[in-house]
Amino acid sequence: MSATQSALDLIGRGAEEIIKHDELEARLRTGRPLRIKAGFDPTAPDLHLGHTVLLNKMRQFQDLGHQVIFLIGDFTGMIGDPTGKNVTRKPLTREDVAANARTYADQVFKVLDRERTELRFNSEWFDPMPAADMIRLAAQHTVARMLERDDFAKRYGAQQPIAIHEFLYPLVQGYDSVALRADVELGGTDQKFNLLMGRGLQEHYGQPPQVVLTMPLLEGLDGVAKMSKSLGNYIGINEPAIDIVTKTMKIGDELTWRWIDLLSFEISIGEAAELREAVAAGQLNPRDLKLRLARELATRFHGAAAAEQAIAGWHAVVRGEGDTALLPLAEVVVPPEGLRLPALLTAAGLTASNSEANRKLKENAVRIDAQVVVDAQRVFAPGFEGVLQVGKRTFARVRLVAA
Amino acid sequence: MSATQSALDLIGRGAEEIIKHDELEARLRTGRPLRIKAGFDPTAPDLHLGHTVLLNKMRQFQDLGHQVIFLIGDFTGMIGDPTGKNVTRKPLTREDVAANARTYADQVFKVLDRERTELRFNSEWFDPMPAADMIRLAAQHTVARMLERDDFAKRYGAQQPIAIHEFLYPLVQGYDSVALRADVELGGTDQKFNLLMGRGLQEHYGQPPQVVLTMPLLEGLDGVAKMSKSLGNYIGINEPAIDIVTKTMKIGDELTWRWIDLLSFEISIGEAAELREAVAAGQLNPRDLKLRLARELATRFHGAAAAEQAIAGWHAVVRGEGDTALLPLAEVVVPPEGLRLPALLTAAGLTASNSEANRKLKENAVRIDAQVVVDAQRVFAPGFEGVLQVGKRTFARVRLVAA
Repeated sequence: MSATQSALDLIGRGAEEIIKHDELEARLRTGRPLRIKAGFDPTAPDLHLGHTVLLNKMRQFQDLGHQVIFLIGDFTGMIGDPTGKNVTRKPLTREDVAANARTYADQVFKVLDRERTELRFNSEWFDPMPAADMIRLAAQHTVARMLERDDFAKRYGAQQPIAIHEFLYPLVQGYDSVALRADVELGGTDQKFNLLMGRGLQEHYGQPPQVVLTMPLLEGLDGVAKMSKSLGNYIGINEPAIDIVTKTMKIGDELTWRWIDLLSFEISIGEAAELREAVAAGQLNPRDLKLRLARELATRFHGAAAAEQAIAGWHAVVRGEGDTALLPLAEVVVPPEGLRLPALLTAAGLTASNSEANRKLKENAVRIDAQVVVDAQRVFAPGFEGVLQVGKRTFARVRLVAA
Repeated sequence: MSATQSALDLIGRGAEEIIKHDELEARLRTGRPLRIKAGFDPTAPDLHLGHTVLLNKMRQFQDLGHQVIFLIGDFTGMIGDPTGKNVTRKPLTREDVAANARTYADQVFKVLDRERTELRFNSEWFDPMPAADMIRLAAQHTVARMLERDDFAKRYGAQQPIAIHEFLYPLVQGYDSVALRADVELGGTDQKFNLLMGRGLQEHYGQPPQVVLTMPLLEGLDGVAKMSKSLGNYIGINEPAIDIVTKTMKIGDELTWRWIDLLSFEISIGEAAELREAVAAGQLNPRDLKLRLARELATRFHGAAAAEQAIAGWHAVVRGEGDTALLPLAEVVVPPEGLRLPALLTAAGLTASNSEANRKLKENAVRIDAQVVVDAQRVFAPGFEGVLQVGKRTFARVRLVAA
């Protein structure tokens, strides 16, 4: 297999669409480092695994020797919501943008290679742009074309207002590709329309049109909805290693293959196929596969030592083997006279309410230090320390402290 | 009648719509000179009477003590057609704009009072405007609202492309009112949508919304279609006085009232009503009314002496009374051996072709020095001088010179 072909295979892994495949191949064949653009929101980032799908693809390009441009779209962020209707979308200051960029850096360099990452802000070319050039840019697309974009079409059809400047934002994003002379732009499938803007504008400005590569949206822990903070079906990349492991161990078997495709660097395309066969043949327990994926993810975001500690903790509690002392210790504040067990489970975040806790107790689903407990009247006083567990996979190692 | 009421009457004369009447009244009552804005195209102007409807209204405001702002929209003119599709709409240079402004001045100060006219260019505030402010401006209206504008609605419905920057131009025009702090904006009825933009934007920028006054489009010589160069039913303000008189004398009786309303300063609203009664009662010949209007228009654009000369020429030829020597003399270049009559009539611009000339000759419709001529073979040599006439109202005083 040629170098170009194996690069194409790696780049294509998990990708939803590549526009156009032959253009990508032609650029890869030139042998020069390509300029790979991906745009990010300038608001304070708190990344979860869903966001890393794109970061992983960027990393793969870097591993193939290409230059990644991490573009923060601060220009429009500093404008805020000029309709004045969205009061929660305040304009960002230059200081906000700088602070958010640092927060991004803290997170994304757990995935990206610093050496091959160019951090850019589009205010660089848009701040000095005169209004006349914005008008010229706006001339490059038609109203009808813009109304073809899914969300605009829906809102227009539903007679919901679309402010005119919203038509300018896809053009702003497209022009970024011109300013950066991007060879490839990466984005989620929901960004396809905007990514294609870049192609058209580059041609207008005399550049070869960028290749557009879209990545699917990662399904969350439930395996159904896309991973999002608001749905609560996510793993944040700054979550403790034990949480990354515990949550990963809960995902369905089918979703595991999807996550491997989109999130694993260690398990290659070829190996993934072999593992699939092994599971189908009953030679491999899917839980072992999940454990391997959980270890890889925990390692990526917390390093190998923390990952091993988390894996061990998970073994100790969920499987009841090994040393619970490896689990992180959480302090729970209780009244000086202590709390009854249902109130304690709720205070520790293991049940949503005392009535749920009582139900779990009746189901023999509550354990303390691996022993089933049924006594709802038992009081736990400050100073108590132990591993509380509800069901098989919800647990916490706690120490009670007086309020 | 109060001063405000008589001002309102004058301002309202011939106006199609005033939005809003009570706001205009309130501003007039303040007694301060109002800022009256009217926007003009920056391309080379060649004004006809249709354009003067607006200029006349501006002049009436000046006569009432208000300040007129003659705004040349050079900002968008210097952008040209950024879609690149309209090759005939080249971007204007700053020199073009200055030259066109001089051409405007030569023409409009035949109507406007220089002392109360502020000549402005919107590049003054738009050239230094950053792209971010254009985005903020674009946020002030919705796509749906813009698609309500007649021409946009039609084009969108007919699936004809509308480039996005076309949505910005009404906002640019509206923002001009903000920059100028206009109290009143005048325009043709076809401009109503754009004029209303100014109201909305001024409110957004914390100013009281301007009063919008629309003037109807003047019907051309045919009394049906709006006056326009392309239809040929116009009187250019730089046309010779004799042409202004001759053409005015040809308009229909009903159109005369309309022209008096929109074009006359001399004939007041009250007098026009009296004249209408006099004509209805058979006490006044409509032709005498037209003659009065023709004299007023010729005087406005060429001065009293030239107007009297033209009126006399019209009498001499059309009515066959008085001295044809008052007519302007045109030189017609002919071959040394001269031209036959049909060719001469065509060379003098009185017929469109020799065959038309021959037809007119057969109809006994051709006169030379008021005498009917039928001999198509007669040759006219260099040195000949006389008044050629085709039909009743088409004539020229010519002198033939050798090529």
